Amino acid sequence: MEGSLKPMDAEQLREYGHRMVDFIADYYKSIESFPVLSQVKPGYLTELLPESAPNDPECLQDIFDDILQKIIPGITHWQSPDYFAYFPSNSSTAGFLGEMLSAGLNIVGFSWVTSPAATELEVIVLDWLAKMLKLPNQFLSTGKGGGVIQGTASEAILVVLLAARDKILRKVGKKSLEKLVVYASDQTHSALQKACQIAGIFPENLRVLKTDLTSNYALSLEVVSEAISSDLSAGLIPFFICATVGTTSSAAVDPISELGKLAKAFNMWFHIDAAYAGSACICPEYRHYIDGVEEADSFGMNAHKWFLTNFDCSVLWVQDRSDLIQSLSTNPEYLKNKASQENAVVDFKDWQIPLGRRFRSLKLWLVLRLYGVANLQSYIRNHIRLAEQFEQLITSDSRFEVVAPRTFSLVCFRLIPPPNDQDNGYKLNHGLLDAVNSSGKIFLSHTVLSGNFILRFAVGAPLTEDRHIKTAWQVLREQATTLLKAY
Amino acid sequence: MEGSLKPMDAEQLREYGHRMVDFIADYYKSIESFPVLSQVKPGYLTELLPESAPNDPECLQDIFDDILQKIIPGITHWQSPDYFAYFPSNSSTAGFLGEMLSAGLNIVGFSWVTSPAATELEVIVLDWLAKMLKLPNQFLSTGKGGGVIQGTASEAILVVLLAARDKILRKVGKKSLEKLVVYASDQTHSALQKACQIAGIFPENLRVLKTDLTSNYALSLEVVSEAISSDLSAGLIPFFICATVGTTSSAAVDPISELGKLAKAFNMWFHIDAAYAGSACICPEYRHYIDGVEEADSFGMNAHKWFLTNFDCSVLWVQDRSDLIQSLSTNPEYLKNKASQENAVVDFKDWQIPLGRRFRSLKLWLVLRLYGVANLQSYIRNHIRLAEQFEQLITSDSRFEVVAPRTFSLVCFRLIPPPNDQDNGYKLNHGLLDAVNSSGKIFLSHTVLSGNFILRFAVGAPLTEDRHIKTAWQVLREQATTLLKAY
Repeated sequence: MEGSLKPMDAEQLREYGHRMVDFIADYYKSIESFPVLSQVKPGYLTELLPESAPNDPECLQDIFDDILQKIIPGITHWQSPDYFAYFPSNSSTAGFLGEMLSAGLNIVGFSWVTSPAATELEVIVLDWLAKMLKLPNQFLSTGKGGGVIQGTASEAILVVLLAARDKILRKVGKKSLEKLVVYASDQTHSALQKACQIAGIFPENLRVLKTDLTSNYALSLEVVSEAISSDLSAGLIPFFICATVGTTSSAAVDPISELGKLAKAFNMWFHIDAAYAGSACICPEYRHYIDGVEEADSFGMNAHKWFLTNFDCSVLWVQDRSDLIQSLSTNPEYLKNKASQENAVVDFKDWQIPLGRRFRSLKLWLVLRLYGVANLQSYIRNHIRLAEQFEQLITSDSRFEVVAPRTFSLVCFRLIPPPNDQDNGYKLNHGLLDAVNSSGKIFLSHTVLSGNFILRFAVGAPLTEDRHIKTAWQVLREQATTLLKAY
Repeated sequence: MEGSLKPMDAEQLREYGHRMVDFIADYYKSIESFPVLSQVKPGYLTELLPESAPNDPECLQDIFDDILQKIIPGITHWQSPDYFAYFPSNSSTAGFLGEMLSAGLNIVGFSWVTSPAATELEVIVLDWLAKMLKLPNQFLSTGKGGGVIQGTASEAILVVLLAARDKILRKVGKKSLEKLVVYASDQTHSALQKACQIAGIFPENLRVLKTDLTSNYALSLEVVSEAISSDLSAGLIPFFICATVGTTSSAAVDPISELGKLAKAFNMWFHIDAAYAGSACICPEYRHYIDGVEEADSFGMNAHKWFLTNFDCSVLWVQDRSDLIQSLSTNPEYLKNKASQENAVVDFKDWQIPLGRRFRSLKLWLVLRLYGVANLQSYIRNHIRLAEQFEQLITSDSRFEVVAPRTFSLVCFRLIPPPNDQDNGYKLNHGLLDAVNSSGKIFLSHTVLSGNFILRFAVGAPLTEDRHIKTAWQVLREQATTLLKAY
């Protein structure tokens, strides 16, 4: 029996690995030939694949054929230069190499001892990135704080919410859970709502505060203050404010500095979610959006969005790592080791939900080294320039309107509905979205702002160039003309 | 500015990708030359790397040099054939290719529409694997249940605990959180304790029930029954039993069928954590360890442990997916789409903690197809055969003893302490562990069973062959001789 299967034979790995590299490079060469949004129907794959796993091995070429014929048609091409939906999810050669190396070494870095390099590189690279963002020293590993790579911003928000929950409950007693109140805006990402559900925060104690165009969809300090006062009078316990730099719907920026001071005045945890726009803050001209970050207890950004680091790599910094560790540590016998027992090292298992963790800092390290800070800044600026271009095109056509100020690389717009339109442009703009997306030529997503259905055009794919903006605009304009004729 | 950085140039990806494949293949060729357990000291890397990210790009060769000289010494080589610590974390060519392809496509599959193939392949492959494990039909996607890939068993346990918590709280009211009681054994993985902390279960309501050698460290049905009765009389609400098939310390197997019936009788959620040993259950001769799984609400195993699927890939099946979805779904406007709104598809974002998710089913699909069921069964059997060999070697030397029955590929053993040993062999066996691990020749981990310090020898690395077992035994024997002389 022994010797029948050599699943880790180095020469087979080499041969097959080279073939996969070529497959992926060829994919990128032909990426513009695919419909950006997959056009398959639900259940399409069940009809194409067998009902059970094969008993005997199949050959790699058959698998490649199946990937091309059966999998690729079901892919929505996030890396296409014509992808403008949601927010970008950047791939890059450096990120890809880092992912390969991480998969190749395949270590599980829950404790320092399980691969010291994995923990130490993460600490170092997150200090590098903190310095690029000019985060205050408290967030560096040299103080009481430090950075950690989470899988997603959802997990980042969850772990800091748990840290904050347990910190206040240690003071007021765990039976007071039902009194804890969280503050955010109606533009805050749904990850916060989900984190509250998980942490057992009572749903009626999540304050989803209204925003509107008068504040450009940013939280108003007054509204938050009033909510806190009213909750305090009701005997509740305000303990957490989540501010966003670059909201999902319109890339709005909450007033960081003021909210931070407010949080401090009431002894609340202050988290900044800069999942998308945090990357832009490595450019001096955008850094002011996170002025006041020194008041924050925690600050997160997704390097896997707009920072060339393949998914997943969500970066979180805290001012006091002991808050995280108190909430999330476990210390079973079978994981005990000298370095941990002596408190000589960081064990990132105690900073996150899972126990196991991949060597994700390799990706970020390769991105920073292969591209360098100056290039990364240019990369961000170029996308913002392209978004400006798109914004100008929208503005130049009187049938369209930009519905929220553009701050970074996201443009929110819609077709202006005819006067007395029954649903104020809902059907019209939904129709436009469906038409452009089902063309397969570009992919946009939508949101609702002030009750209106809005199209979102997010620039940020690494392959997007000027010509793709022009094509996108042409597709939108043509579909608009067709739609308006029939309207 | 435009054109200065081409981070996603297909030809650069090809060239650099090929170089990385060779680097990794060469790593595997030389893997036996490295100390298995990294021998660096805390903080070693800080002295080797600069204090901040470079402003200008660096070349790939310099990075490769740094990986060899600075990173590899800080790696504990989980893929070494001489690695016997914790549990295995399998790498394979198929798993590596799947990880490459997932990183190459770099989609974010939170909803079906964001890449239908990612969701549908996961559904299909998890049905395949469920059939290999002969899970009852209720766990298949064709019924009310289904499978989902989580990052880790910690996340799997957390999501089912949340589903169970919310299910019971919907009935008894959310203010009863403080009355909810969880049952497990003192051998259950610490992931359950962490999940309870996160979910807000009161720490005093986690029943960590004692086990001992009389039941081979399995939960005793009687002990659980008594605990439930006593909690019910105290007005508490028993709601969750976690059973383990293959505990971390000694691979003990809890009595699945009996515990399942007990859970059903009291309307409790019954979860089976088969993170390690679940893989063995694809062999008919080991399947009986999960007899009674039809009583379980959820069942999990880690394909990334002993199933050739690179980390991370933890597989979870539930009998009723609506329990998960009710706990974990959010539905913000910006993620709405026709397929989801019509309930025509699965959106895995509602089955897990994070929003974003990688295309991990590719790995599992490639493993199943490139190797086939028969080879995977042989693979498991071969490791169990090697563990039996090691067990015989231990038994053949009267200085050693096997301290718990070997069921799968884990052998728990120790040096028998001299009569009247002050600490009953603690120092002696700790000394043995430190000596073999610091030799760099093999890497073992430890646990404590019935108060005694125990060495764990877990066979399961893909490269481990008969000769590595013999070498490991030689290293252990020699170190034991040295130690006992000085004792």
